[in-house]
Amino acid sequence: MPFEPTDYLPYDFANRRHIGPSPEEMSEMLETLGVDSLDALIDQTVPKNIRQDEPLDFGRPMSERELLHHMRLTAGKNKVLCSLIGQGYHGTVTPPAIQRNILENPAWYTAYTPYQPEISQGRLEALLNFQTMVSDLTGLEIANASLLDESTACAEAMTMAQRVSKSKQMAFFVDRDCHPQNIAVIQTRAAPLGIEVIVGNPDKMDASKVFGGIFQYPGTYGHVRDFTDHIAKLHEHKGIGIVVADPLALTLLKEPGAMGADIAVGSTQRFGVPLGYGGPHAAYMASKDAHKRSMPGRIIGVSIDANGNRAYRLSLQTREQHIRREKAMSNVCTAQALLAVMASMYAVFHGPKGLKAIAQRIHRKTVRLAEGLEKAGFKVDPKVFFDTITVDVGPLQAAVMKSAVDEKINLRKVGETRVGISLDECTRPENIESVWRAFGIFNKDDDFEPKYRVPENMHRKTEYLTHPIFHMNRAETEMMRYMRRLADRDLALDRAMIPLGSCTMKLNSAAEMMPVSWREFSRMHPFVPKDQAEGYLELIDDLSKKLCDITGYDGLSMQPNSGAQGEYAGLLSIAAYHRANGEGHRNICLIPMSAHGTNPASAMMVGWKVVPIQSKENGDIDVDDFRAKAEEHSENLAGCMITYPSTHGVFEETVKDVCKLVHDHGGQVYLDGANMNAMVGLSRPGDLGGDVSHLNLHKTFCIPHGGGGPGMGPIGVKAHLIPHLPGHPETGGTEGPVSAAPFGSPSILPISWAYILMMGGEGLTQATRVAILNANYIAKRLEGAYDVLYRGKNGRVAHECIIDTRPYADSAHVTVDDIAKRLVDSGFHAPTMSWPVAGTLMVEPTESESKAELDRFCDAMLSIREEIRAIEDGKIDPENNPLKHAPHTVNDLVGDWDRPYSREQGCFPPGSFRVDKYWPPVNRVDNVFGDRHLVCTCPPMEEYAEAAE
Amino acid sequence: MPFEPTDYLPYDFANRRHIGPSPEEMSEMLETLGVDSLDALIDQTVPKNIRQDEPLDFGRPMSERELLHHMRLTAGKNKVLCSLIGQGYHGTVTPPAIQRNILENPAWYTAYTPYQPEISQGRLEALLNFQTMVSDLTGLEIANASLLDESTACAEAMTMAQRVSKSKQMAFFVDRDCHPQNIAVIQTRAAPLGIEVIVGNPDKMDASKVFGGIFQYPGTYGHVRDFTDHIAKLHEHKGIGIVVADPLALTLLKEPGAMGADIAVGSTQRFGVPLGYGGPHAAYMASKDAHKRSMPGRIIGVSIDANGNRAYRLSLQTREQHIRREKAMSNVCTAQALLAVMASMYAVFHGPKGLKAIAQRIHRKTVRLAEGLEKAGFKVDPKVFFDTITVDVGPLQAAVMKSAVDEKINLRKVGETRVGISLDECTRPENIESVWRAFGIFNKDDDFEPKYRVPENMHRKTEYLTHPIFHMNRAETEMMRYMRRLADRDLALDRAMIPLGSCTMKLNSAAEMMPVSWREFSRMHPFVPKDQAEGYLELIDDLSKKLCDITGYDGLSMQPNSGAQGEYAGLLSIAAYHRANGEGHRNICLIPMSAHGTNPASAMMVGWKVVPIQSKENGDIDVDDFRAKAEEHSENLAGCMITYPSTHGVFEETVKDVCKLVHDHGGQVYLDGANMNAMVGLSRPGDLGGDVSHLNLHKTFCIPHGGGGPGMGPIGVKAHLIPHLPGHPETGGTEGPVSAAPFGSPSILPISWAYILMMGGEGLTQATRVAILNANYIAKRLEGAYDVLYRGKNGRVAHECIIDTRPYADSAHVTVDDIAKRLVDSGFHAPTMSWPVAGTLMVEPTESESKAELDRFCDAMLSIREEIRAIEDGKIDPENNPLKHAPHTVNDLVGDWDRPYSREQGCFPPGSFRVDKYWPPVNRVDNVFGDRHLVCTCPPMEEYAEAAE
Repeated sequence: MPFEPTDYLPYDFANRRHIGPSPEEMSEMLETLGVDSLDALIDQTVPKNIRQDEPLDFGRPMSERELLHHMRLTAGKNKVLCSLIGQGYHGTVTPPAIQRNILENPAWYTAYTPYQPEISQGRLEALLNFQTMVSDLTGLEIANASLLDESTACAEAMTMAQRVSKSKQMAFFVDRDCHPQNIAVIQTRAAPLGIEVIVGNPDKMDASKVFGGIFQYPGTYGHVRDFTDHIAKLHEHKGIGIVVADPLALTLLKEPGAMGADIAVGSTQRFGVPLGYGGPHAAYMASKDAHKRSMPGRIIGVSIDANGNRAYRLSLQTREQHIRREKAMSNVCTAQALLAVMASMYAVFHGPKGLKAIAQRIHRKTVRLAEGLEKAGFKVDPKVFFDTITVDVGPLQAAVMKSAVDEKINLRKVGETRVGISLDECTRPENIESVWRAFGIFNKDDDFEPKYRVPENMHRKTEYLTHPIFHMNRAETEMMRYMRRLADRDLALDRAMIPLGSCTMKLNSAAEMMPVSWREFSRMHPFVPKDQAEGYLELIDDLSKKLCDITGYDGLSMQPNSGAQGEYAGLLSIAAYHRANGEGHRNICLIPMSAHGTNPASAMMVGWKVVPIQSKENGDIDVDDFRAKAEEHSENLAGCMITYPSTHGVFEETVKDVCKLVHDHGGQVYLDGANMNAMVGLSRPGDLGGDVSHLNLHKTFCIPHGGGGPGMGPIGVKAHLIPHLPGHPETGGTEGPVSAAPFGSPSILPISWAYILMMGGEGLTQATRVAILNANYIAKRLEGAYDVLYRGKNGRVAHECIIDTRPYADSAHVTVDDIAKRLVDSGFHAPTMSWPVAGTLMVEPTESESKAELDRFCDAMLSIREEIRAIEDGKIDPENNPLKHAPHTVNDLVGDWDRPYSREQGCFPPGSFRVDKYWPPVNRVDNVFGDRHLVCTCPPMEEYAEAAE
Repeated sequence: MPFEPTDYLPYDFANRRHIGPSPEEMSEMLETLGVDSLDALIDQTVPKNIRQDEPLDFGRPMSERELLHHMRLTAGKNKVLCSLIGQGYHGTVTPPAIQRNILENPAWYTAYTPYQPEISQGRLEALLNFQTMVSDLTGLEIANASLLDESTACAEAMTMAQRVSKSKQMAFFVDRDCHPQNIAVIQTRAAPLGIEVIVGNPDKMDASKVFGGIFQYPGTYGHVRDFTDHIAKLHEHKGIGIVVADPLALTLLKEPGAMGADIAVGSTQRFGVPLGYGGPHAAYMASKDAHKRSMPGRIIGVSIDANGNRAYRLSLQTREQHIRREKAMSNVCTAQALLAVMASMYAVFHGPKGLKAIAQRIHRKTVRLAEGLEKAGFKVDPKVFFDTITVDVGPLQAAVMKSAVDEKINLRKVGETRVGISLDECTRPENIESVWRAFGIFNKDDDFEPKYRVPENMHRKTEYLTHPIFHMNRAETEMMRYMRRLADRDLALDRAMIPLGSCTMKLNSAAEMMPVSWREFSRMHPFVPKDQAEGYLELIDDLSKKLCDITGYDGLSMQPNSGAQGEYAGLLSIAAYHRANGEGHRNICLIPMSAHGTNPASAMMVGWKVVPIQSKENGDIDVDDFRAKAEEHSENLAGCMITYPSTHGVFEETVKDVCKLVHDHGGQVYLDGANMNAMVGLSRPGDLGGDVSHLNLHKTFCIPHGGGGPGMGPIGVKAHLIPHLPGHPETGGTEGPVSAAPFGSPSILPISWAYILMMGGEGLTQATRVAILNANYIAKRLEGAYDVLYRGKNGRVAHECIIDTRPYADSAHVTVDDIAKRLVDSGFHAPTMSWPVAGTLMVEPTESESKAELDRFCDAMLSIREEIRAIEDGKIDPENNPLKHAPHTVNDLVGDWDRPYSREQGCFPPGSFRVDKYWPPVNRVDNVFGDRHLVCTCPPMEEYAEAAE
């Protein structure tokens, strides 16, 4: 027996691990499609003129073991010191049970955004806990389910203030003691909107000149000030008062609500979420009840289901996008769900007493530190502080900082003579002694008698976290079971395909996820000196280069931490480019009607006017209309935003022409990268004429959706835009930042890097091919039963397909909602509903799904078609049938059954597993009831009962 | 506000994380019990005369973060080199998806042994996959669900051979090319049983003199020999042929079945199970069908449930213990379930082609290595090999070994002049070059043309792993969902209390589990030089000291890797002690009737005779009977085995008297440590008179049960027994080894160490107190409804209680089985059934369960009593009621319902969760059918259908 070259590909090979259908299955699928080979299918699908010239080549792909070894080496280049830099980022202890059971558990991290409430009750409850926690701690009535980071939350608060203020002023006051990155992001956001930002001392604020003001609490240098009077003054002039507050400090200090604040924002990072070199973390926003409908982001609420049982749902979601479009003031359409869940569990674990004890311990340590320094004659500022102080060391700043690093401590450089020190949950007595030594204090001070450095009038007087959920028994057994129960209520990728058309829900492999938890990645403060972050910088550099190779761009910024942020950052770079060319007047943006909702919102945010472009009958851009609009606005054309392949799931042949048109009229092309999973290895946006694109690393590049965040939306640009990429106060650059941290959410970048390293160029390309195969296979199998809207020239779809369910509204009173909920009975998350075409379903199976799973889905869809036909044929009541009662719960089975179909038909439609069936915990959620009774914090049990009556 | 000393204990404190009831709950429970304080309850429960003098004191307990830091430092003292030592342990790649979703997933690792098949279908399927894999690879009809390690499997095979052989010989042949530890463990086991072990060259074996022979394949020095003729010779003389085979080699080589072997054993470690410095790993055993009922350990089989649907179950379990008792030839009563599951998933992931490709690659690398050495003039032996070779280097042995270590490679020292090299899945081309350099070969050989070193006649000719389960689509998405589906079918500690009386099922905290996965612990070969394992040695040393403190012993051996192994090792040390004192004739062991079944089995294994001792009416040892028997056998008294507190859950006041009696008659006391969870911090076996005890680290010290293994059963001994603790060929010692690895299963020891470090002395003691509180609370709440058998003087139970359900057999035809299955409907694992008293339930809640969970259990039990009463009162049919139909499945709900109780009552009895209910995947399993149709490998689907008819 020779060593035969085996035709077997082990699972640990890109072509197997990530790609669902086996080689045999692919052959069967191609046969179904009537094509000879995968290449032939791709040739029919992807137009020749947009194909890339050279195949992707990243050398030999790594095995999982090689990858993890490589990651270890890279991680080892990061030096993990004890960072006392503060500035919005603090050491924190992630309870191992939360790490294991949430952060590292696919049931949590592979879930999608909870748009389908019936299959998302677990994380909806966790997020409601988050809102309750935020609302309680800030003393404000309503909170959302998290925002991207503290700095963008500040910017969102500013624009929200403008929306809700009755002031006519166009200026906004910013406390000079806000964290520098908060000030900078506010300034970035304000400029294109024509808002004047006044940074100054709050005591000198002229409230009559502004529509609102924002104050950091405690201040970036540690000051604990009462902003009650400042906010009162703002109110006198119809202004809005915003406090950026550290939620941990709020366990001890007078809360923003008690100061009269209208809005509070901040970061919940220090509630157990690893530093991760800057993110991802969940920011929060809370406000007075009166402003709730102006709040950006998502708000979870309580409603009832069809049987009157309590059910959670998204009460207020990305309305900006779906409703306002061109009128939007914010493009926020995601949250940091996974991180918000972690932070909320941290609060559930510790409870109010525990959080207070943690805060007290930190304060006590800071007092000890400060007293030691004061005794040695150092000038410590402020006198009233929570966890942060600064010390004036005159010309010795560099020496002290260096000496601290020698002690494995990072301090903060403040101005040219001061040093900032911020303590946290992780600070140990030895660390304080190290700091002292860095200041030349070697005699250990042992007769320390701590005194509160917060005066009585700044003490918190109100209770918080009084709801029973924060008074659970804190034994780990109970907590573990609570997390498991919540996880089990949800349907995520670890149980079934999530065939969305709007989001690429593909495998997030275990090997890719592992490095995220490593301390060398997780315990890095974002503002450490560069020489401590060489591992991260190497990762970011290499990943950027590879993404440039994939997209055909010349430079890349990792700063945007969501797709929408990427759009915004990309347009900002275009606007800056025009300004640099003396063409700052260009402000017209052409956007097809079928675009993602965030597109017009982002354009609005850079101060542009959106000119919509018509679609043709077949869904393609109407090039004639495009040309006409481009010509009409030639003088002022800033650019266009197009998605490729189109949001209709088609590779349009005209894309290069459209780009050329824009360039001919002096504009720049923003090519939305949301559908990049259909292009990698086959076609490059940069080659098609794009000047800038964002990449959804959480779609195409395997970062999990986390139940509604985190995301990452880096932008690739052509060379001429590189100088106009986002800068950052900590790292420089000519433009302002769009995110709190210089590299967005770095701790999840190892995932995308690992994916590319393990796939290699050929593996990535094969993934694209199979994504297209899978979509076409579904389209084929559903033929005859459903119409598939929008196809390419050869009758093929790209990586997704739109299933037309509109006819059944008339023929059978069946809505797209009915079909979506009925799919739950078969154990599926619904496809994207009513987007981009109302009344349709859009399906993107991705390459990760096997033929068996695709067939299960098709079986379910075909069976639904038969159920519709039964209504059409008058065989079953149009209001009393499996579609209208979907989804079915165990409760339905237990009770009486007087329906014109059997329990069996109701609960076990084709596609559903028998033994392993997923049971939704609630019946269909009543949206109307929820809208009428908006409850967005955990209410006492009695209220639900009343509400249900 | 001063820094008030808060009364709050954060969750991250021993008294909260591990201890279920909150302080408030404890107050309520004490009130229910009518005692003033926990101390008062303990005083009523634990007799004064057995209490320890000094409280446990291990200094300040560590927080989770401190613990993990401490573990990092310890782990860092282990040096992870590339070990090419072989000798039964090989580098392997654990697929990250298996690591994350099984090894690190509480749904898998917190499960109990699958004695209750209805709630264990997931891991039963995984273990059936394991059996099928083993059966296929070895070419033998039947396989068990794993054994402790390869060496003990060899010893078990020997005793099994003796059982099934019709030969009258008392000698056993052992291939001298068996791994040294296999030979040594066989010798240890053989001696007390009077079996003569003949170690020699198989070609010179005199088959007429032995009842069986065992052959290593490939041999420890790499030889690949065909044992067909040797086995045929054995058969001629009614002897049994056993092959110890590397399962990976069997993908290429002629299988034991094809050689005519009767039994095959081996280790599945290299199927993705980390080295872990020696364990835990799953050994396997396969045999001809004819011998299946003589096989030790557990065998999973296929049966049907009450509705005729396929259902898995334990077909043959620990029959030795439960049935044979004094006739036992083996005390095996556990398996390595978690590791067997991992190994089986490795095979499912890779499939037969993948496994073969891995084996071929390893062989190819070994050929390359050998050819390089041969070209350089080295003498390589053997010529026919799979993955292992030896090289004769004459006097340069030490130099080459040292030179290899400098290259970060560990080689094996063979004799005084040879060096062994064994390659594996992890070997990289660079490693081979490193080895060459260690031999002074620096010119890289590049024109390598590999040739198979296995002659045609040794090639495997048969297929294996043909079942569809090994041909699943190997994409990670499918695999992840398969693992999730199986996990969801099972009920483990992550969802509900497992209130066993025979096993302490307590929290296995996430922080304790984390270090197990670290490479510094997981990638250590057991035979590396000591200076590479300083972290492990420090851990083992400190853990041993602390366990000695806890138990009152002077020395400890970590070698036994199960409780039963601990018993056996402990008795061996007593026997050796007697021999050393010239009293080798002592061979009588007194054992109470109520003892764990393993006790008499272990005594038999050391060649002793068991003299049973009566129990009194109240369950206590009958001291008069004990005295009488001790006196009667004074001359030959070897010792006694007693359990404390007793298996009846009572602290007997007489324990010290009993121990003294034994000592007075020249015997030694084995004090079974199974119930140590009732003693830690309150009482020490060593102080009571015990000479030796084993500790179930997987009960009292938080190692999870893993669904039926791993376990760890170290023994503590008094000073006089220290010289007689188990030795090991690799580490020395005067006695023989009982396990394959010197320290048993070291990679799970960090769990117990972490537990002790985080609890501290006071925390550990509090855990004991609360365990007693919880048991007494249950006993109290069930009073009136059920009788609680056996109480102490003050009417208290210890840490467990026996609930008498015998009366209902007569009064209502309700069996203990009915009650156990009905508890599944309430979402509970059943208590221990019919042990130690037939027809009763024994409940041990442990300290980890909160009052809420205890109440849920009591509610369920009380409701069951009402259901029994309804039968007694004639209100419901004795054969058609919720108890007889339990457990209820979703299928019951879906179908027609013609029962005299409602669906609601059937499926949602008190205690069951509504939304979060656990649904068993099958109805009650039909044991009779399973026994009649013994199917122990995955059968084709059709067979199930036929069987069900």
